[in-house]
Amino acid sequence: MTRQELIHQIKSKKSFLCVGLDSDITKIPKHLLEFEDPIFEFNKAIIDATKDVAVAYKPNLAFYESLGSEGLKSLEKTMEYIPSEIFTIADAKRGDIGNTSKLYARAFFDNMNFDSITVAPYMGHDSVAPFLEFDNKWVILLALTSNEGALDFQFLQLDVGKNKLHEKVLQKSQEWGTTENMMYVVGATRGESIGKVRKLIPEHFLLVPGVGSQGGSLEDVAKYGLNMDCGLLVNSSRGIIYASDGEDFADKAKESATELQKQMAHILSEANII
Amino acid sequence: MTRQELIHQIKSKKSFLCVGLDSDITKIPKHLLEFEDPIFEFNKAIIDATKDVAVAYKPNLAFYESLGSEGLKSLEKTMEYIPSEIFTIADAKRGDIGNTSKLYARAFFDNMNFDSITVAPYMGHDSVAPFLEFDNKWVILLALTSNEGALDFQFLQLDVGKNKLHEKVLQKSQEWGTTENMMYVVGATRGESIGKVRKLIPEHFLLVPGVGSQGGSLEDVAKYGLNMDCGLLVNSSRGIIYASDGEDFADKAKESATELQKQMAHILSEANII
Repeated sequence: MTRQELIHQIKSKKSFLCVGLDSDITKIPKHLLEFEDPIFEFNKAIIDATKDVAVAYKPNLAFYESLGSEGLKSLEKTMEYIPSEIFTIADAKRGDIGNTSKLYARAFFDNMNFDSITVAPYMGHDSVAPFLEFDNKWVILLALTSNEGALDFQFLQLDVGKNKLHEKVLQKSQEWGTTENMMYVVGATRGESIGKVRKLIPEHFLLVPGVGSQGGSLEDVAKYGLNMDCGLLVNSSRGIIYASDGEDFADKAKESATELQKQMAHILSEANII
Repeated sequence: MTRQELIHQIKSKKSFLCVGLDSDITKIPKHLLEFEDPIFEFNKAIIDATKDVAVAYKPNLAFYESLGSEGLKSLEKTMEYIPSEIFTIADAKRGDIGNTSKLYARAFFDNMNFDSITVAPYMGHDSVAPFLEFDNKWVILLALTSNEGALDFQFLQLDVGKNKLHEKVLQKSQEWGTTENMMYVVGATRGESIGKVRKLIPEHFLLVPGVGSQGGSLEDVAKYGLNMDCGLLVNSSRGIIYASDGEDFADKAKESATELQKQMAHILSEANII
């Protein structure tokens, strides 16, 4: 998907909502366990319920891999089911030596037709580059994550240029990709840091996890992170997909997603983006 | 597997060889493509040919994921086939927020019965900790990788304590695990750096990729990296598994692996470890 197509979708849906398909066999409604593929049934219902207000879906690979080859089959079926105009993110946090990253790129971009994949930066340029060789596919590089462990290394002060490590990751990686094929993960739990990140990369899209269950505020994210093209994909997983664990789970998911979308429409309108 | 069991195996086989099962459907001998599961047939033959001289097997997940759910099935079958006394490494380079890393841990440790998994450090403590909660299972943390991109971030000079980033990763992570459940990836392509790493972590095992195709020398690795318990697992992938692409591939793999094992036996003997 191109940047323009993504922006078009955001404007027409008045939403920058990404729904995290962190579909856990131990948490989905019990009545679905009767189906042959409960995870796929769950995803299908969540997608049907939210596709009018979501501009992106983000399955986290761990939830599927933890079910072995069967789980990967559920993911493959889910990917076929997601409408093609909606942006898809393989939240896989991969990154390996060049020829190995190339195989991951083929797995997620060619075989499963994801639009993007999250990539960890520690191994540097040649671990990221193979993902950037695909037309209209995106790397979403981890910069500032939403978890507590982010403080261990990402905020380390560097000797040269007085940057912190995550700022160096932002700067260095701009030599590798463009605003048309690279985004960054920047956690919602660090509002002010989003502002600093925005100064370093005014135009890039940011994928923002951590709103809702993890404590980040949508208002803060918008205040510090919005740019002229919106420039944000804000993810919510548990707050939407587990809004209810009863037979009404899809209706409740729709309510939660629509509630967020309304707040987003207001934010976009106030900022004269729509 | 415990540290003592691993050391026992090293001493009895006179080897610290890890065979990388980077089994690529485009590179395995053509006659295997007639089988229902060519990757598994290939792995089975490689394992039969090398199990007397290898102390560890390391499948890189990318090669299996690139074949979708079928590839994961080949991996599951391979894991069942590897003799239980041989150490197994899921070269997956995972790392995610805590509750997600826990799922990866279950996938690799519980479901597939790997002894260890490679983990990327960028997301810090809570992304690594869930892997350390399993008895007799190991985290192998990326410290210094063998690729060119290692220079982008891993060698960055920090402001405090005058460490480089990978040295900080080594130091900080020693608060998380012990010499009984944590190893480190340290690439063979950086001989002298292995020496510096060894000073920081004298007792930990190091997993050393990059010998052979990537240009690292076994002699240098041993010179800088050996400790009293050996403390090394040296990986070779392509040099062994693709030693021939004909019907004699298993025989040639055995020759290559045995050649390395002989050099290792000499090294271990010179160092009075055996």
